[in-house]
Amino acid sequence: MSAEIICVGTELLLGNILNSNSQYLAMQLAKLGIPHYYQTVVGDNLQRIKHVIEIASKRAEILIFTGGLGPTPDDLTCESIADFFGVPLIERPEIIEDIARKYAQRGRQMTPSNHKQALIPQGAEILPNPTGTAPGIIWQPRPGLTILTFPGVPSEMQQMWEETAVPYLQSLGWGKEIIYSRMLKFWGIPESALAEKVSAYLNLPNPTVAPYASKGEVKLRVSAKATSEAEAQKLIAPVEKQLKEITGLDYYGADDDTLASVVGQLLRGFGETLSVAESCTGGGLGQMLTEISGSSDYFWGGVISYDNSVKVGLLGVNPEDLAKFGAVSATVAEQMAAGVRSRLGTSWGLSITGIAGPTGGTEAKPVGLVYIGLAAPNDKVESFEYRFGAGRSRSLVRHLSACTALDNLRRKLLTRSQ
Amino acid sequence: MSAEIICVGTELLLGNILNSNSQYLAMQLAKLGIPHYYQTVVGDNLQRIKHVIEIASKRAEILIFTGGLGPTPDDLTCESIADFFGVPLIERPEIIEDIARKYAQRGRQMTPSNHKQALIPQGAEILPNPTGTAPGIIWQPRPGLTILTFPGVPSEMQQMWEETAVPYLQSLGWGKEIIYSRMLKFWGIPESALAEKVSAYLNLPNPTVAPYASKGEVKLRVSAKATSEAEAQKLIAPVEKQLKEITGLDYYGADDDTLASVVGQLLRGFGETLSVAESCTGGGLGQMLTEISGSSDYFWGGVISYDNSVKVGLLGVNPEDLAKFGAVSATVAEQMAAGVRSRLGTSWGLSITGIAGPTGGTEAKPVGLVYIGLAAPNDKVESFEYRFGAGRSRSLVRHLSACTALDNLRRKLLTRSQ
Repeated sequence: MSAEIICVGTELLLGNILNSNSQYLAMQLAKLGIPHYYQTVVGDNLQRIKHVIEIASKRAEILIFTGGLGPTPDDLTCESIADFFGVPLIERPEIIEDIARKYAQRGRQMTPSNHKQALIPQGAEILPNPTGTAPGIIWQPRPGLTILTFPGVPSEMQQMWEETAVPYLQSLGWGKEIIYSRMLKFWGIPESALAEKVSAYLNLPNPTVAPYASKGEVKLRVSAKATSEAEAQKLIAPVEKQLKEITGLDYYGADDDTLASVVGQLLRGFGETLSVAESCTGGGLGQMLTEISGSSDYFWGGVISYDNSVKVGLLGVNPEDLAKFGAVSATVAEQMAAGVRSRLGTSWGLSITGIAGPTGGTEAKPVGLVYIGLAAPNDKVESFEYRFGAGRSRSLVRHLSACTALDNLRRKLLTRSQ
Repeated sequence: MSAEIICVGTELLLGNILNSNSQYLAMQLAKLGIPHYYQTVVGDNLQRIKHVIEIASKRAEILIFTGGLGPTPDDLTCESIADFFGVPLIERPEIIEDIARKYAQRGRQMTPSNHKQALIPQGAEILPNPTGTAPGIIWQPRPGLTILTFPGVPSEMQQMWEETAVPYLQSLGWGKEIIYSRMLKFWGIPESALAEKVSAYLNLPNPTVAPYASKGEVKLRVSAKATSEAEAQKLIAPVEKQLKEITGLDYYGADDDTLASVVGQLLRGFGETLSVAESCTGGGLGQMLTEISGSSDYFWGGVISYDNSVKVGLLGVNPEDLAKFGAVSATVAEQMAAGVRSRLGTSWGLSITGIAGPTGGTEAKPVGLVYIGLAAPNDKVESFEYRFGAGRSRSLVRHLSACTALDNLRRKLLTRSQ
């Protein structure tokens, strides 16, 4: 028993859009424990869609279609399915009513072309679309074969999948064994070093532990197979606890946590506030912090001191030190952090100055050289030097700088409190 | 005659990664004018890969594989191809030498498993991989059928495609007619309004004009079919000129231009400088401006005035006006822009204050209400009110705010100079 994903749309064959629907559906099938061996993309062409149905219906028991449900003549999914199985398309008045009602709510008139969206293969059940006009179908054209269709718009497809397809597939007995995962997140340790530290866990049968890395962040996905989420969590909890103990401060959070959200929780817990002074990141650190709704509780703001005159004028950096050590130096990073903290009156001041590249590097101060300054509530000021490397893009050096600044503050907040 | 894309990898069937390779290859095939009707994804399984080869080799003349070329036992692409066509795999010494050389450069020892990557079907040519260890192949297992294989790592695949596959396909006669596109970019006009303005152009045969929209930006893709890029540019140029005339100031740039890069070019041309004062965007406007290398020529920095105390202390906003009109008001936006301009001593000052949501909205000041302030070199200060709408995410409201601020400055720079 297996399912197969069939994405319909000439725009996919032209490379106009990225096929995110197949990834979403693949993850969903894995979660329900439904085997899945093939995915096919086919254009808006009746004969070719029928050819794909012929192949897929021989090797899978569940065919999942996305796309080709719109009102225009090149939307051919339902027509191809009905044609292949030799049944007529029937106009369903409840679909017409639903479309007319949605148009009325938006103050628009339904057009004749929308009638096409009400045509579904005789005998099929309607899979309602809560937001868009194109409904899907659930249909067993013959025993042992189930067809589900979804519109190509990802948000509509996902909502319909969760609200109607998942309960339907569960009613068929799928999803009794689910896969539940926790994503543990780490900063400040390379993937290879983390993998070595936790090597004893990488061959566990259930839960499994797998490392991932991207843009400076390393993750461990802990996945358990079980009959319920609660059972899976019971399997994961002791492993997660041990992994956290082994990795110590390198672990910063799980799932939806970000460095900014974790730093925010810590600051809120201590009743402390933060300001930032940014040179090479140009506002990126502030943006990360304020991506969190409610960050105004602890983040007061900062200074983007891109030009040296701003470092002197608004942050009080000593012009002689600027001339002597250069804008990218430990001294200037420390004065920036202390300056923003004192001028904004916050508990902490966090600063970044560096060479983001691709130009501006020298032998002594190469692209990727970054200093992070941290001024603490006890007036102590520190700085940290990083060499993020010349091979990296401007965008990545800036991203690593902002994340590493947050990580330094996170570690300080955690170790100081002990 | 057509080509078919076959992506090999169980990680695609589990939804662990997004299939960006198929989009890249689809675009490339379109560019070369090679028809392409089907894409297939299959897991790391010899029998299933052979099954896919059987189907695809009946309906296409060029099979393009990605993935499954690595050194581990689950990398089966070459083995499956050789097995299907009944030829042995041959270890090629030049591949071994190349891998050994790359390992030596990185100070590492080649492992026995790398020998697997040197096995290619008897009679196939090597498609060199300049950066990674896994080479591809180009092979005609029988007359009228060409097989190309590429590693799954997108950067390696793309480099190999451009350096070796494109010249090869061109030598077969493909790409004599190329498709060349220009992407014209617009800000400040909805997609429907732009489409109406340029409706006469949307049915042209060559070049074609097609509208796209995402996150507030509208684009027109102007694509020409011709025998060379120069010929295509000749077809596009008059249409592009007319489209720019019709759309006036709504057009801001083409291809790699961004609002930040266009504003930067204008400022540099005038020899003027800019500073920013950001509330709800928290640094995002500064980040956009500094994403451009060399932006220090005209961007001096700014103030992230997230908390009202920073608006007063660092920008000189009048506390009485703050209390009377609120932080999200035209008055405060104007004082922020004037304040940052005067304190940083720049030609222009640009400010943003608004309610990014999802919380913090009221009936009078709903989520998405944003004021943009602009202080000009002639000391004149203006502000602009926007209602970006409560249905939009915090992230989108912030993005629209920063882009719209840049767009206001762009329009001012262009109209003032006339």
